[in-house]
Amino acid sequence: MDERKIVLRELLTQDPADIAEILADLSQDQATDLVHLLFLRHAAAEPLGDMDPDESAELVVQLDRKEASQILSRMDPDDAVDLLLELPEEIQQELLSRLSRSDARVLTDLLAYPPDSAGGLMSPEVVPLSLSMSVQDAIGHLRQRVQDAETVYYAYAVDEVGHLIGVLSLRDMALAAPGRNLHDLVIRDAVSVPVDMDAEEVAHIFDKYDYLALPVVDDDNKLLGVITFDDVIDVIREEATEDIYGLAGVPSEEGVDTTWIQSLRLRLPWLYVRLLTALAAATVVGLFEATIAKVAALAVLMGIIAGQGGSAGMQTVTIITRGMALGELDRVRGWTLLWKETMLGIANGILIGVTVGLMTYLWKGELLLGLAVFLAMTVNMIIAGASGVAIPLVVRKLGKDPALVSGIFLTTVTDVLGFGLMFVIAIWLLPGI
Amino acid sequence: MDERKIVLRELLTQDPADIAEILADLSQDQATDLVHLLFLRHAAAEPLGDMDPDESAELVVQLDRKEASQILSRMDPDDAVDLLLELPEEIQQELLSRLSRSDARVLTDLLAYPPDSAGGLMSPEVVPLSLSMSVQDAIGHLRQRVQDAETVYYAYAVDEVGHLIGVLSLRDMALAAPGRNLHDLVIRDAVSVPVDMDAEEVAHIFDKYDYLALPVVDDDNKLLGVITFDDVIDVIREEATEDIYGLAGVPSEEGVDTTWIQSLRLRLPWLYVRLLTALAAATVVGLFEATIAKVAALAVLMGIIAGQGGSAGMQTVTIITRGMALGELDRVRGWTLLWKETMLGIANGILIGVTVGLMTYLWKGELLLGLAVFLAMTVNMIIAGASGVAIPLVVRKLGKDPALVSGIFLTTVTDVLGFGLMFVIAIWLLPGI
Repeated sequence: MDERKIVLRELLTQDPADIAEILADLSQDQATDLVHLLFLRHAAAEPLGDMDPDESAELVVQLDRKEASQILSRMDPDDAVDLLLELPEEIQQELLSRLSRSDARVLTDLLAYPPDSAGGLMSPEVVPLSLSMSVQDAIGHLRQRVQDAETVYYAYAVDEVGHLIGVLSLRDMALAAPGRNLHDLVIRDAVSVPVDMDAEEVAHIFDKYDYLALPVVDDDNKLLGVITFDDVIDVIREEATEDIYGLAGVPSEEGVDTTWIQSLRLRLPWLYVRLLTALAAATVVGLFEATIAKVAALAVLMGIIAGQGGSAGMQTVTIITRGMALGELDRVRGWTLLWKETMLGIANGILIGVTVGLMTYLWKGELLLGLAVFLAMTVNMIIAGASGVAIPLVVRKLGKDPALVSGIFLTTVTDVLGFGLMFVIAIWLLPGI
Repeated sequence: MDERKIVLRELLTQDPADIAEILADLSQDQATDLVHLLFLRHAAAEPLGDMDPDESAELVVQLDRKEASQILSRMDPDDAVDLLLELPEEIQQELLSRLSRSDARVLTDLLAYPPDSAGGLMSPEVVPLSLSMSVQDAIGHLRQRVQDAETVYYAYAVDEVGHLIGVLSLRDMALAAPGRNLHDLVIRDAVSVPVDMDAEEVAHIFDKYDYLALPVVDDDNKLLGVITFDDVIDVIREEATEDIYGLAGVPSEEGVDTTWIQSLRLRLPWLYVRLLTALAAATVVGLFEATIAKVAALAVLMGIIAGQGGSAGMQTVTIITRGMALGELDRVRGWTLLWKETMLGIANGILIGVTVGLMTYLWKGELLLGLAVFLAMTVNMIIAGASGVAIPLVVRKLGKDPALVSGIFLTTVTDVLGFGLMFVIAIWLLPGI
């Protein structure tokens, strides 16, 4: 028991982010025990706030409800809300009902915002200042209230009814002469984000201007809270993971620690979707069974043509969807991209087509078969390039996530056309089939 | 001319990040003109520093060398170095030779660090403090020197010979009583990063601890500079882009604004690599030309088996490589993952295999052909799952980037085996072929 105390004391000197990592590595029983011990020392809130919300939620449901609600009340409100969102509705309600009325109000208000909006990212803990204050007064005021405020790098000036007037950098305040007035330091046309702005758009603003924090306002320009850069780093990572997963047909809920039964449930639907598109391509091949029986080489070649079209098209889809995610696509017009990728398709198609056509000729000694392969490859590559641009643009226009579904449409196009073109051109060119 | 002045004055009220965006949108001639006008008003350095270094480099080479070197001397040193790295060696040297000796020394030192290391990310502009100072003195000292320091949120305490002692938060200093000693405020066991640490590892530390800035030290714990979170956001974005591109075989130099000739040069090599692997798969099919001539249906079916294996395997590869990038894989052992994905392969394989086997039976009315398809599908899916784990792990062990090459190895395995299994099992099971 003594030894355990020493370990615990040692643990408490660690950064909460380190304790969070230890909690994530322990078995659920051990982690729950440790959270209880941390709770007794008022040290459970921060590490739980640093964990992935789905992981911390798994621990919190194991705790005594009274203990859980006390931990919740000590967490940063934005972290507390992320955690609450992962809990079953009835536990969420029970925990909220055990909080003080003001704490519960804060969390209930935050829960009303969509998690992927500015409101879902923000912390309501912000200390508003009046412009009539001197720097000295303002710092004194902040000093008293700083426990409440998430991470103060900026302070925000508001008028009597709470409308945002401007931003004050704490650095400027610290480095200014104490007697100066906040009027001299305030930056008036500062960037603020509306509470309903999409989280990814918020991330782009942070990325562009390199802000540490941004004030969040409602339609009426009333100050509601603040978003700090660390929340945004998570958004950027998650956004990238979603895009990567989307292109490979992996559901965004997956991770390396998902159990295999969960993974099966998550991934199987996509494999069946993929099967449907494969059947569409197979149906095309099936139409030409008689042709295959006569020229079996076509079965060998059709896969190469479809495969190269798919590879080239996926290069295009990847560049377009990533460009969309990074907000780079607004600078370049769709027609320009379509022209570029079509040109690329022609050039790629001719170069790869000549290579494969020549190899076919050397293999079978039939010039016309080589020519058919060349033509099928070139046409498929051109269509692959053009579709690689058109599909994500159309998908986005329809309001869907391009990274999620463009790949499957593209490979369907390149497979069906790759197979179809090979047979149609061969039948047209080759005598006697 | 008057109108132009008004536009320029209006422009100068914008945030440098906005001016940077405008510069990126203009034609090269227009942008060069604008940079010159901005230069005359001492306002060119910041926007150029906010641009992508490859884009700002294109503008800087157009400028008069004297003008370019003056702009360079006014840029943040870390941005200046990023720009210099994009310039041809002789222009780089010429610009450096025109700088003051101390400016040139700073940049030359920074140029010596690999761009993807902590040294490549850091800014050397950091104001070290001595612990003997009072808070008031320290703030006074910072106030004098703040022009030099990139973005001061933390100050760093060093001993007489420059060894890092600890970190002082400017927020704590601003909110502390002015007479207090820095001794009371310093955080001694603060995290610092060695100058040769990999940029992606630095990004993980920022992500984990939510720091605004981290001090960079040499082997001897001497303070060399500071990395701020905005540099790290760029690293996280670039890292994600590289991973996404890698999985689709797109070179990391590409973007939506690459010209089609450049794109051709960049993408074609990968398409030829992909062609090689397609030829390997085609060779397998070619071995069974006689079988295809007898049972043309096999040509229809082989594509489905190879394709489903490729899709399932790529799901696995994507999860594993993304887990590696996010540093999540260290928590889970390779064998655990291999077991999990193999189990998934068995379950996926049986479910998809039964579906496709049944459809084949309904299509052709041959029970044994359906059975052959079921078996080939199941075995290919199991191997796809296991290879999806094994390939990235082995690639990483060999010191290569798993996101870059795992996909191509995986699809080669699933194509070759998908085709091969279909034929071998069919010949074994079906009478008379």
